[in-house]
Amino acid sequence: MSNSRKPYQLVSREWQKSDTIININGTEVGKDILLIAGPCAVENEDQIYTITEFLKKKGIRFLRGGAYKPRTSPYSFQGLKTEGLQLLRKAADDHNMSVVSEIMSIDKIEEFDEYVDILQIGTRNMQNYPLLKAVSKIKKPVLLKRGMSSTVEEWLLAAEYIVSSGNSQVILCERGIRTFETATRNTVDIAAIPLVKQLSHLPIILDPSQGTGNRDLIEPLSLAGLAAGADGLIIEVHNQPEEALSDGEQSVYLDQFENMLPKFRQQANFRGKKLAINTNAKSTSL
Amino acid sequence: MSNSRKPYQLVSREWQKSDTIININGTEVGKDILLIAGPCAVENEDQIYTITEFLKKKGIRFLRGGAYKPRTSPYSFQGLKTEGLQLLRKAADDHNMSVVSEIMSIDKIEEFDEYVDILQIGTRNMQNYPLLKAVSKIKKPVLLKRGMSSTVEEWLLAAEYIVSSGNSQVILCERGIRTFETATRNTVDIAAIPLVKQLSHLPIILDPSQGTGNRDLIEPLSLAGLAAGADGLIIEVHNQPEEALSDGEQSVYLDQFENMLPKFRQQANFRGKKLAINTNAKSTSL
Amino acid sequence: MSNSRKPYQLVSREWQKSDTIININGTEVGKDILLIAGPCAVENEDQIYTITEFLKKKGIRFLRGGAYKPRTSPYSFQGLKTEGLQLLRKAADDHNMSVVSEIMSIDKIEEFDEYVDILQIGTRNMQNYPLLKAVSKIKKPVLLKRGMSSTVEEWLLAAEYIVSSGNSQVILCERGIRTFETATRNTVDIAAIPLVKQLSHLPIILDPSQGTGNRDLIEPLSLAGLAAGADGLIIEVHNQPEEALSDGEQSVYLDQFENMLPKFRQQANFRGKKLAINTNAKSTSL
Amino acid sequence: MSNSRKPYQLVSREWQKSDTIININGTEVGKDILLIAGPCAVENEDQIYTITEFLKKKGIRFLRGGAYKPRTSPYSFQGLKTEGLQLLRKAADDHNMSVVSEIMSIDKIEEFDEYVDILQIGTRNMQNYPLLKAVSKIKKPVLLKRGMSSTVEEWLLAAEYIVSSGNSQVILCERGIRTFETATRNTVDIAAIPLVKQLSHLPIILDPSQGTGNRDLIEPLSLAGLAAGADGLIIEVHNQPEEALSDGEQSVYLDQFENMLPKFRQQANFRGKKLAINTNAKSTSL
Repeated sequence: MSNSRKPYQLVSREWQKSDTIININGTEVGKDILLIAGPCAVENEDQIYTITEFLKKKGIRFLRGGAYKPRTSPYSFQGLKTEGLQLLRKAADDHNMSVVSEIMSIDKIEEFDEYVDILQIGTRNMQNYPLLKAVSKIKKPVLLKRGMSSTVEEWLLAAEYIVSSGNSQVILCERGIRTFETATRNTVDIAAIPLVKQLSHLPIILDPSQGTGNRDLIEPLSLAGLAAGADGLIIEVHNQPEEALSDGEQSVYLDQFENMLPKFRQQANFRGKKLAINTNAKSTSL
Repeated sequence: MSNSRKPYQLVSREWQKSDTIININGTEVGKDILLIAGPCAVENEDQIYTITEFLKKKGIRFLRGGAYKPRTSPYSFQGLKTEGLQLLRKAADDHNMSVVSEIMSIDKIEEFDEYVDILQIGTRNMQNYPLLKAVSKIKKPVLLKRGMSSTVEEWLLAAEYIVSSGNSQVILCERGIRTFETATRNTVDIAAIPLVKQLSHLPIILDPSQGTGNRDLIEPLSLAGLAAGADGLIIEVHNQPEEALSDGEQSVYLDQFENMLPKFRQQANFRGKKLAINTNAKSTSL
Repeated sequence: MSNSRKPYQLVSREWQKSDTIININGTEVGKDILLIAGPCAVENEDQIYTITEFLKKKGIRFLRGGAYKPRTSPYSFQGLKTEGLQLLRKAADDHNMSVVSEIMSIDKIEEFDEYVDILQIGTRNMQNYPLLKAVSKIKKPVLLKRGMSSTVEEWLLAAEYIVSSGNSQVILCERGIRTFETATRNTVDIAAIPLVKQLSHLPIILDPSQGTGNRDLIEPLSLAGLAAGADGLIIEVHNQPEEALSDGEQSVYLDQFENMLPKFRQQANFRGKKLAINTNAKSTSL
Repeated sequence: MSNSRKPYQLVSREWQKSDTIININGTEVGKDILLIAGPCAVENEDQIYTITEFLKKKGIRFLRGGAYKPRTSPYSFQGLKTEGLQLLRKAADDHNMSVVSEIMSIDKIEEFDEYVDILQIGTRNMQNYPLLKAVSKIKKPVLLKRGMSSTVEEWLLAAEYIVSSGNSQVILCERGIRTFETATRNTVDIAAIPLVKQLSHLPIILDPSQGTGNRDLIEPLSLAGLAAGADGLIIEVHNQPEEALSDGEQSVYLDQFENMLPKFRQQANFRGKKLAINTNAKSTSL
């Protein structure tokens, strides 16, 4: 693709040669390797505190958790909503962490602006243009997941909607695309990572949990993503995956997650990077 | 699929054996063959009146037109918005027709309730659950397009969101899915039509315009859709497709559309049905 | 697509404006509507004679049946091979019918040339170039199925291999492509039919059996195919589908097939065409 | 998937717990990291000798090159055929290397058995069952590429065809699948690598060249593949990619390839493995 034919502009590498670095509560996203972890959904105070405490000990700085859940069936657990956001915020504050959560609707902008540090736009809403414009009006970073059937070009154009409307703090997130293969929940398009790094200056991370739907594939996919140049990972972690209210089969156990960290660190080092985690955490394994 | 494994209920054929018939300003959708026509986007008063006048002469009762346009690029024409809805309503009222237009955002519900007879949910919003819940709270019929990468099951679950929230007037619309084939804009899943008729009691229509992106394929696809059991068609028609502000290449000329009508009628008759058009229209060709 | 950019030549509509008509034992394929029917696989003499006798009574002229079966698993029934071809030939000769069967390998060319009237190239072999070249060296018509993940352009290029190597008697067959949708075995790309008619002068038929994998969808898909402009149909018919050695769930019952014929005739007539079946058959229902 | 429901047996991890190790001229495939490199097609003696000499200096032991090329168009370069195989063999023998080349047809088995060390089955022939059976009758290892629209299950069943017919020396090769994304030639299904390692004892390597069609993505994809657990890589290398007779845009330059080797080594070491290359090669960079 020659530059002249690209339909996006502000997010392109031609527009800005240097990588965009987004400083979030002291972490430089786009420079250091971002690690976001937490449950698929916030379920109750015990659950979120158990997981947050564990993550804190491992040095993780970013806590994810769904409060408003976009579920395929109207009869599935839809999230704790405002209460979920409040629990997330409280658990994060008590452990000096930042909060990442998915926003589904323009009428919740103020609520998310109050409770959340990174607003996630999910795969079903990548082309929800009113929502893209709404999140561009606040000063918080946006984690923009790739639509499950979106091309890289459409994804960058969705980012262009946000940036051209006033918010340049966009983090892209590859989470797999929909293909004929049914052995995994989605097909992680690993080539999208280096391709996006060529086409755009925006940081890009990988979600191996949604990407595979299979906890045993999280570690190899995470390593692949880092080796391919990803700026970070967002991983679903649960203290009791078998009893999770959503997506338990793709959530890793706490000890599984712990065992991955030294490998993530090594992949980061291969690239001359460091993990954006606290090394004064209790664990000395890193 | 056995009934017990189906995740949807209210929209299923098991729940209601007989076809749902939706009466819209005297037209019985689900019984007679619904024909909706009009431009991709409302562009100005001259354009919408020229097209509406033509359609009226042919007996068409339902006028489509985009006022809020979900465009892949932020730099493309985004629609006339409120003004577009007002022009549509005025042109339709002056010709005793009904209005179909796409709603993209929950904060426009009142506006659409005022100006529009059928609220269209577009392919990008099929899993925009707040929007699905919002349109279920008003008493207007909803035209629910299939998501471009949604399975039939996910589509019926999206309809279940609307029906279970209080609005049973849902019309499904197949508009093609995304595949590897690039010769057409999308791949019309023609089998989805008889499949949906088996699985659900809801009416289903076909959009051959978005389905193919190619005006020369509109007629054969429309005939195929009717032969396969579709309850209607929604077709993009423009008086000057070459100068259309959006999707001109998939809009048929006025005379092309006129020539299709006798064939649509014949396909309807094959099935013992009649077209939901006014036979006291000036044209006597039907 | 402008002509100058098309990579195929001999099969293009620009090269030959008029439709290719292939005369096979008196039937003009490309002019009249071709109907091919029979079991997925030849299983034994009783089965093939029961089905052939039935089809003969209905006026069908072309008997299909697999002798060499390309099965996904090495442990599935692989066909009766030579014996299967001999049974097909004998049953067809005894009823004055023609034989269609799939060839999988270049070392069977002589055998197929001896027993078969139309050599079928299956979806898995659409890009088996040695096989395409081999079938171009004999004087029999070739039924070229679309590869399950092939674009229309690749399909026409596969036909170009056969035609440019010396055999211009190619009949194309749309049989569905592979997509994310799992409710049907494949996704019939109905738009490919009128598209191919525009791009090429070769006849094109539809296989609704492989296309859907569901006997209840055969009739509506067949009607859709004919309405969209198909030059014929190839349908799997079995006297005892529940006990078929392969693909029973997509084979229609004898009486189902019989009931479809008047509707096929109606669609053919609608296009000013007639079915290529014997009207002096015992059944007077047509 | 529980064991009882898997349709394949001999290739399954349940059948054989330990990894299959295939000794090819002293290299233990499945244990050490296999590196195969060379041009897409053998073009002439100068070309193949220039590339082979370079690869030899870098310690590469396996030379790839197409002699029979499966080209989408009949008018594209189809390969040097027998002469190509002879040139490959001669170049390889003169540099003490092994030869990998694609076989397309059962009538070339003896020729390939004579000239080639690893017989490659290409993506278009993964379900060419006569060919699978033919290659199972000789004692050479088979490199089985994944069909461009094949599921992992279908791929393992294709391997089962070879193993159950008598040849257990099968090396699987992920080469990308066909999706809606057009920014890359194919979509590398990186998760297929760890998934296959769980389901099967067979070695699996990655082809990033066909997988992406873009030379700038070869290095990150190769690293991702190794990080995800691949047993090796097959990479298209050309001394003058701009003048290559096929696939030049996805062939890496000689110096690009050289610069990747230390990184491949690092990824191998990270997994406790070593590269299967000669360390007494002139280059000391490893």
